[in-house]
Amino acid sequence: MQHNPVLEAIRQRRSIRRFTPEPVSLAEIEAILDAGRWAPSGLNNQPWRFLVVRPGEPRQDALARHTKYAHLVRGAQALFCVFLDREVVYNRAKDLQSIGACLQNMLLAVHALGLGGVWLGEIINQEPEVTRALGFDERSLELMAVLAVGRPDQKGSSERKPLAELLLEPLSLADE
Amino acid sequence: MQHNPVLEAIRQRRSIRRFTPEPVSLAEIEAILDAGRWAPSGLNNQPWRFLVVRPGEPRQDALARHTKYAHLVRGAQALFCVFLDREVVYNRAKDLQSIGACLQNMLLAVHALGLGGVWLGEIINQEPEVTRALGFDERSLELMAVLAVGRPDQKGSSERKPLAELLLEPLSLADE
Repeated sequence: MQHNPVLEAIRQRRSIRRFTPEPVSLAEIEAILDAGRWAPSGLNNQPWRFLVVRPGEPRQDALARHTKYAHLVRGAQALFCVFLDREVVYNRAKDLQSIGACLQNMLLAVHALGLGGVWLGEIINQEPEVTRALGFDERSLELMAVLAVGRPDQKGSSERKPLAELLLEPLSLADE
Repeated sequence: MQHNPVLEAIRQRRSIRRFTPEPVSLAEIEAILDAGRWAPSGLNNQPWRFLVVRPGEPRQDALARHTKYAHLVRGAQALFCVFLDREVVYNRAKDLQSIGACLQNMLLAVHALGLGGVWLGEIINQEPEVTRALGFDERSLELMAVLAVGRPDQKGSSERKPLAELLLEPLSLADE
């Protein structure tokens, strides 16, 4: 299992918060969106909707004004705004989980393309104002997160709890 | 980008609902849990807790009694119960998204290991009874989903909406 590229990507991906000035290409943006699109969802309702904001667009400012991480928004080469389509919601808890699966697919795609990115969740503390500031109707759409993406200008680092702390009971050896 | 194994795994993974009688090994179970453990979470609070149920354990019955997909529960070689730890919740919407990211990492690991699996979300319609039936206190833990896993005995199939339907606005060409 040591050289499984999928397991390695999952294990090695880190949040990247500093980017070089190099642009992210349209092909890269499409590959990231395509990864999000293939996430699983309850009843296959695919509740995610996407908006991509690139440097210099007025919406970059609108995003920056609604988060304390304005410097990340201004430093990114592509901002992926992921919304929940309120009209296809069938169970809020499950739909939020599906959105999380979609975001994780996108982050793994970012990593797999040699790019870096970070999940900005703090910005949704300013819902629904941020959705309105982007020009959308908050009765139809709810911003779920923004991914800030670019070419990495740092190495990320992060830790996780050991598995033993996350298991409610030790794994049984069963028949082994 | 054609031969990127991570993008291919994301694109090719499908829900698998029929399994052979071959067991899933302890090493495979650990690799799947490890993938879940490396998901991102807000403030890195890692709200996921895991319980693995294997065939023949009394909890397999407890799960089967709380879902209309009892046949899937009984046919699986490993059942991954993923709970939210209510004591570390800091923002329910963000925590549910993180749990979704964790589940997607696990499903991608299942696929990458040559196994198959399906996300059972319907079972949480019977929360908190199912958490109690598993022997846990629903004031501390909330079941979020169960992944049924085994060696595939079918090819999965599924479709997704085209990207154009999911984009709120066409991608701008920017400087290309």
